[in-house]
Amino acid sequence: MKLTKDKKILIVGLGVIGAAYADALTEQGYCVYAITRSKETLDIAKEKGIIFKGINKPEKEFVEQADLVVFALYPHVFEEWIDSYQWMLKSGAVITDVTGVKTCIVYKIQEKLRDDVEFIPAHPMAGRESKGIQFADKNVFKKANYIITPTEKNTEDAIELCEDLGKVLGFEKISRLTPEKHDYMIAFLSQLTHVIAVSLMTASNDDSLYNYSGDSFKDLTRIANINDEMWSELFALNREALLKEIDKFETQMSKMRDLIDASDKDGMREMMKKSTENKLAFDAKFQKNK
Amino acid sequence: MKLTKDKKILIVGLGVIGAAYADALTEQGYCVYAITRSKETLDIAKEKGIIFKGINKPEKEFVEQADLVVFALYPHVFEEWIDSYQWMLKSGAVITDVTGVKTCIVYKIQEKLRDDVEFIPAHPMAGRESKGIQFADKNVFKKANYIITPTEKNTEDAIELCEDLGKVLGFEKISRLTPEKHDYMIAFLSQLTHVIAVSLMTASNDDSLYNYSGDSFKDLTRIANINDEMWSELFALNREALLKEIDKFETQMSKMRDLIDASDKDGMREMMKKSTENKLAFDAKFQKNK
Repeated sequence: MKLTKDKKILIVGLGVIGAAYADALTEQGYCVYAITRSKETLDIAKEKGIIFKGINKPEKEFVEQADLVVFALYPHVFEEWIDSYQWMLKSGAVITDVTGVKTCIVYKIQEKLRDDVEFIPAHPMAGRESKGIQFADKNVFKKANYIITPTEKNTEDAIELCEDLGKVLGFEKISRLTPEKHDYMIAFLSQLTHVIAVSLMTASNDDSLYNYSGDSFKDLTRIANINDEMWSELFALNREALLKEIDKFETQMSKMRDLIDASDKDGMREMMKKSTENKLAFDAKFQKNK
Repeated sequence: MKLTKDKKILIVGLGVIGAAYADALTEQGYCVYAITRSKETLDIAKEKGIIFKGINKPEKEFVEQADLVVFALYPHVFEEWIDSYQWMLKSGAVITDVTGVKTCIVYKIQEKLRDDVEFIPAHPMAGRESKGIQFADKNVFKKANYIITPTEKNTEDAIELCEDLGKVLGFEKISRLTPEKHDYMIAFLSQLTHVIAVSLMTASNDDSLYNYSGDSFKDLTRIANINDEMWSELFALNREALLKEIDKFETQMSKMRDLIDASDKDGMREMMKKSTENKLAFDAKFQKNK
């Protein structure tokens, strides 16, 4: 299947990511259908003109029109949806998702899915600190990574369809990773950073300090305003990988703490030099990818 | 003494901060003298037109002209300078500094200083990740805090002179704190954040991960490119306060780790809600101060 403009795309869940998908796809001239639980959200979507048609509860005639279905739901809601409504999907439809963890969900969904429907998992690595359609912004995709995590069950055709979707949405970089490599990467780059930001933001009871903040504390706590419902679920689902990355970070924190405790300036400098070296390598990669 | 334009200001050390002071003060019409060790730095300063006159080594006729002397040196170099050259200072001169730690240096310098010279300590909370005159930028002061840390030995007259200096340099907010409160604040807001950034930036040996970074890892490691000579000295000098703040942070990290280990979503959500609440309070203060 090619992502031609006659294809009907259904988005399930018009949250901050689903609504941004709808907006970007409508703007590119696609016919976007939506199912979202809240009446108010649907009204906003219609008012904004980011969907063609939408309903609040799955109905067979509505669902079976779709060639491509994007699930922008919390992981457990996605799974429940498949359990309850997959019978409504058109034979030959392709489904994808936006879930921030992969190993725990991908194999399970592929296992329980009908044989005549293909699930190609993906993770748009973009988001906002706030949730809901009113914060949806299709521009967050422009500098972001779109990661497809195919398994042995996927066809090259569906992977390419998913890559096309990433291109249409405007992602700057589109990659393929195994679900396992994805989860290890996301544990380090995204989940660990959220654990750190939350820990830092709750570490002091003295809010008079905030009066004197410079940019470093501000930068390290940017993501401390956090959607607790989503992130607690994502942390629990990626528990093992995340614990490993937390432990790696904690090893370094202890090492630096010991050096400070011992007033070992040479040891501190060695660690700081390594940090500077890694940061320059990171910047070079990050720039190249932009 | 008032900071009128007939006053002669001497800056000792044209690093990234000292040179930015020189630039800002010259622009405001002050007559700026400078002493800096490197010939090359002095040439650049002259070329840029940010000083009126400069030399590489202290000379009595040069030093004794100054009404106000700003020491923009590493802490131990500042102390050595006072030991060796304070005899050159004009009677009635006021001296100040830019040192990022206070308790360990303020009392010591005030103790050993001549009775006819007053030291009023200050910390411009602004900087760059890079060192040296070529990275000096007077615009970094515009959104920053200027903190004066007077002791019982200081006169109101000198404190006000220092406040005027902060205003002329363009700082948005000028405050007074005790040296002790300053060091506790800086341990949490600035030193701890650097410890975290360095630990995070050195936590993984797998730099292929950097290819997939989103904004959160980038934000948390912005300051991981670090002047190791300066920061190791600052960490060691503020050892006790910093260890306490590291321990507060580590308590929170352990708490979150335990919650993840136990897949305790309610516990995680509670901590995340506290984080969001604190972040909103921080943003409100930070905005108000801008």
